[in-house]
Amino acid sequence: VQRLRLGHSLGQTTLLAGDGALAAAAAELQTWLHGRRVFTLSSSKVRALHGHRLDALTAPAATRVDLDAPDGESAKRVSEAERLWAAMAAAGGKRDSRLITLGGGTIGDLGGFAAGTFLRGIEYAQIPTTLLAQVDAAIGGKTAIDLEAGKNLVGVFHHPTWVVADPAVLETLPLRQRRAGMMEVVKIALAADPALFAALEAAAERLAEGDLDAIAAVIAPAIQAKIRIVEKDPRESHARRALNLGHTLGHALEAADGYATLLHGEAVGWGLRFALRLSARREGSAGARQRALALLSPFPLPALPAVTAEDLWQYMKRDKKGRESGPVWVVPLEVGEAAMVDDFAPDILREELRQFIESESGPRGAASE
Amino acid sequence: VQRLRLGHSLGQTTLLAGDGALAAAAAELQTWLHGRRVFTLSSSKVRALHGHRLDALTAPAATRVDLDAPDGESAKRVSEAERLWAAMAAAGGKRDSRLITLGGGTIGDLGGFAAGTFLRGIEYAQIPTTLLAQVDAAIGGKTAIDLEAGKNLVGVFHHPTWVVADPAVLETLPLRQRRAGMMEVVKIALAADPALFAALEAAAERLAEGDLDAIAAVIAPAIQAKIRIVEKDPRESHARRALNLGHTLGHALEAADGYATLLHGEAVGWGLRFALRLSARREGSAGARQRALALLSPFPLPALPAVTAEDLWQYMKRDKKGRESGPVWVVPLEVGEAAMVDDFAPDILREELRQFIESESGPRGAASE
Repeated sequence: VQRLRLGHSLGQTTLLAGDGALAAAAAELQTWLHGRRVFTLSSSKVRALHGHRLDALTAPAATRVDLDAPDGESAKRVSEAERLWAAMAAAGGKRDSRLITLGGGTIGDLGGFAAGTFLRGIEYAQIPTTLLAQVDAAIGGKTAIDLEAGKNLVGVFHHPTWVVADPAVLETLPLRQRRAGMMEVVKIALAADPALFAALEAAAERLAEGDLDAIAAVIAPAIQAKIRIVEKDPRESHARRALNLGHTLGHALEAADGYATLLHGEAVGWGLRFALRLSARREGSAGARQRALALLSPFPLPALPAVTAEDLWQYMKRDKKGRESGPVWVVPLEVGEAAMVDDFAPDILREELRQFIESESGPRGAASE
Repeated sequence: VQRLRLGHSLGQTTLLAGDGALAAAAAELQTWLHGRRVFTLSSSKVRALHGHRLDALTAPAATRVDLDAPDGESAKRVSEAERLWAAMAAAGGKRDSRLITLGGGTIGDLGGFAAGTFLRGIEYAQIPTTLLAQVDAAIGGKTAIDLEAGKNLVGVFHHPTWVVADPAVLETLPLRQRRAGMMEVVKIALAADPALFAALEAAAERLAEGDLDAIAAVIAPAIQAKIRIVEKDPRESHARRALNLGHTLGHALEAADGYATLLHGEAVGWGLRFALRLSARREGSAGARQRALALLSPFPLPALPAVTAEDLWQYMKRDKKGRESGPVWVVPLEVGEAAMVDDFAPDILREELRQFIESESGPRGAASE
């Protein structure tokens, strides 16, 4: 089990990652929860699979209140946040009460937002149960809910006190989800960590098969890579924007698709491929492009949704990470190095999108299950 | 015009206070708004009185979108926050968009919360139009909305980039509101600033008459006193709790009263009197108690609501600033010095409440208008 720390303006997050992380965290979490009112947030599906793992941790709490949200994106409605707030108030939640999230990225986002806003912020712990949440969503204090107008439009930066990323909970995670989560690992390696990138190359086939030992070995390094960037730029004003690699197109694809056919990580996978295409226009290294395409090749992706370049362009213009002047692109220059580009001419981008859609139509690799 | 600064973990707030503050702020606010999408939040009443004051400030903005919320506490419903979020998203709000609040404490609380949560936080300015908001609510980054279960149960710490406290906007403020706002000034002086307290004593009669020149003279010192405390303890974990002086009873009175007859400042006025009573039980200085009662005496208060000690006790137990162990009291020890007390025996407190209600029944001083 690796013990990592993420320092932020209000203190620090302690992160435990690797086989046995839950057991290793038990004593400290018990102390943290001792005598407190504790809220746990999960979904009925995840709670059925892994809820028992909370029992030992919360045993010393004065009171424990279990709250469940729906699976998937519908957890992140304003009405769900309001339901949580009301339940926490009704149960007598105080500023020194605690919250634990047990679930994937949507549960973590909702729970983090509720913890960050209830009584102007209570401490919380993230116990992510998907690979994507373990390496990305649970790290760095971003929390959010959705509006009708778009995903993640409302949220706060609120760092958890604890993150426990134990690969044991990934045993129940479908192969397709494992592969989707790996896209965020590839993203951070390509954007910022050449050593991690090389490790991914060395294990690519096993990772693409969803081998849990191979996956377990890259979780802590991926978290560490993200910590380094978040500590440099906690509020995402410069360096942290590199983590948006693959997401400018990815978010637009998800939105244009109505969040119907692609997992988030899969949309990022397509976004990585498009970012590599753009890198050729900004003197990105051809060798880095080749290595990245080779690393991605054993990971199948579902077909691109049937969208036009114009659809995608409209969604990108609304991207919340854009400036008033338009979308910002993260473009790989070398393995481990990316540039932020906000001055692509709209005509060139649309043409690139058209060509990309044309050349990439059809699924990539084996049909995913 | 006094120029003050409040440093916080993400930067600093610049505060301009005194006659002519709006004019003095114009050039800098224009630069801050130049080329941006700007949202203004007010109420129809305040906008009719003072909305024109925004025109020069926002002239260089690329777009200006005016949003109004209801007057009073109903501005702070979850549904109002949701309406603002949706309107900001629909208008294409980005992370570098800006928000300006123009109004009293409820408009500032709602606007600050919307600014603090939209896209995980955009910059905003507070232009408070009540004395209470100028000296207290707009200072220190506390934002909040209400739940059915209680006031201010959901919020974030999100500091404005600018606060402009210009007494010119108080000309339209009713005398009763001026007096209520002064209770927060008395509170901070009694809790933390002996020099301000002496200045209040010297001008007590004029302040109680609502004299705007006298009031204007104490705004900047009151803000400065609050800044000192907030900078010491931004998240209200120790020193800042002193600003809760008068509020443990005050909040319970407001809640037991259904927010019907007392203004917030008036509830705090009653709370200050009760805190002075408790100070006798903790060896608070008798001289300080006499001075504080003398300072408060020219300020009339509406009658205590018809509530029992037991009612109040029930509301206090739910106070969100309490710990799992119960309510925390701020008790004056000297002029400018207060102690946090969390170990009053419940029986003693109930008895003190009973005696207080008995001895203080009926309005204090002249009927307020």
